[in-house]
Amino acid sequence: MLATVEHDGVADQVAVEEPLEIRVDGRPLAVTMRTPGHDEELALGFLYGEGLIDGPRDAGPTSDLAANTIEVAGPLLRDPGERRFYTTSSCGVCGKGALEEVAVHSRPLPDGPRARREVLATLPDKLPQPAFERSGGLHATGLFDPGGELVVAREDVGRHNAMDKVAGRALLDGLVPLSDRVLCVSGRLGFELVQKAAVAGAPILVGVGAPTSLAVELAADRGLTLCGFARAGEVNVYSRPDRVVDDR
Amino acid sequence: MLATVEHDGVADQVAVEEPLEIRVDGRPLAVTMRTPGHDEELALGFLYGEGLIDGPRDAGPTSDLAANTIEVAGPLLRDPGERRFYTTSSCGVCGKGALEEVAVHSRPLPDGPRARREVLATLPDKLPQPAFERSGGLHATGLFDPGGELVVAREDVGRHNAMDKVAGRALLDGLVPLSDRVLCVSGRLGFELVQKAAVAGAPILVGVGAPTSLAVELAADRGLTLCGFARAGEVNVYSRPDRVVDDR
Repeated sequence: MLATVEHDGVADQVAVEEPLEIRVDGRPLAVTMRTPGHDEELALGFLYGEGLIDGPRDAGPTSDLAANTIEVAGPLLRDPGERRFYTTSSCGVCGKGALEEVAVHSRPLPDGPRARREVLATLPDKLPQPAFERSGGLHATGLFDPGGELVVAREDVGRHNAMDKVAGRALLDGLVPLSDRVLCVSGRLGFELVQKAAVAGAPILVGVGAPTSLAVELAADRGLTLCGFARAGEVNVYSRPDRVVDDR
Repeated sequence: MLATVEHDGVADQVAVEEPLEIRVDGRPLAVTMRTPGHDEELALGFLYGEGLIDGPRDAGPTSDLAANTIEVAGPLLRDPGERRFYTTSSCGVCGKGALEEVAVHSRPLPDGPRARREVLATLPDKLPQPAFERSGGLHATGLFDPGGELVVAREDVGRHNAMDKVAGRALLDGLVPLSDRVLCVSGRLGFELVQKAAVAGAPILVGVGAPTSLAVELAADRGLTLCGFARAGEVNVYSRPDRVVDDR
């Protein structure tokens, strides 16, 4: 979703950024800065990534049709307590009460799938980013099969939102856990993106950018294959390289 | 701050990412994912940007020397209430209770300073990013004078943290409000970075990347000069161009 702005006397396009309030059974739970569109997916993917739901739920505009608000049917798997989640375009550990709680529980990942190194290295080229191409202002996440076929892709001003939207779509389509799929993101690889991928059950995560130290640690701990710097036909594999078929 | 990891049989360097808990008078207020170092600056800059303090405070490791925890002396200007702030590497609107509250109050910006377009366009080239150059995994914020001289720069895995650290340093050095200075960031320009710049009193904000719609709206509302796509000697000016001396 794009908007037109003026600079230096010319019209140009920028990514739309607006707050979204996520409510569960009428109770405000989170505010995130996002690009409007696919808000149900975003809400469901966010709640799933936080371990608060374990399957699809009804979600849609609130009955009072409040702008930028989405209502999800409860109940949640656990009480988020008095705490609310306040998230932004790139926020993922919001709502955790202590340092030791930043990690969300996730089930063990399967041994497979296996994917060719060349396929993983070129996934970013197959990630559609139409709004980015016109504005330079959005991140993207794509869900692929191990052969490199695109299943679904989403763009958002927030890189965590883009992954939440893909996870939410997958949830609605009955594809979670993503045991035989590969996730690819357009940016860097931080702790929270690895966590969201692991919670969604995706065994392989590819990023165009650099991983952080904690992203590598978490990936190794969860047995996730973490691939960074996927550019120009090359990719670095930081953990669980046994899922990568090396054809070099 | 960098860490060494292995990929594909070679050693390489990545940006360190670890959680930091910010406490005020012993009370946990926020958790942010950040690159360790300059934690006092980060805590002070964050609290200032949220409108919770209006000047420097004592800040340092907690008395129990808990790892990754920083203690700031209270009291705060207002009670954040029962809410806690849970932030991540790029989180800035955490702790706001409703959509209409996402904007933090900031004082009017001064008419000046004025800066040459060519100087603004080349600020990113003058922004030191030593850790990024070795890892590809960090963002940076720099504080400059209108002639393009660097005052201070900070790097962090989170782009909002990098700006919080610069604001915290400036607060400790008595430079806030930054009425005659220019801020420059290495990435895109979202709502929250514009808000942090406005709250710190910086009249000009330059970014290497694209602005969002809400960033442009907020900049226009606050009278801040917002400059994006500062690359290759060019820059787009989205608001308050009267501060830009056009030498084209």
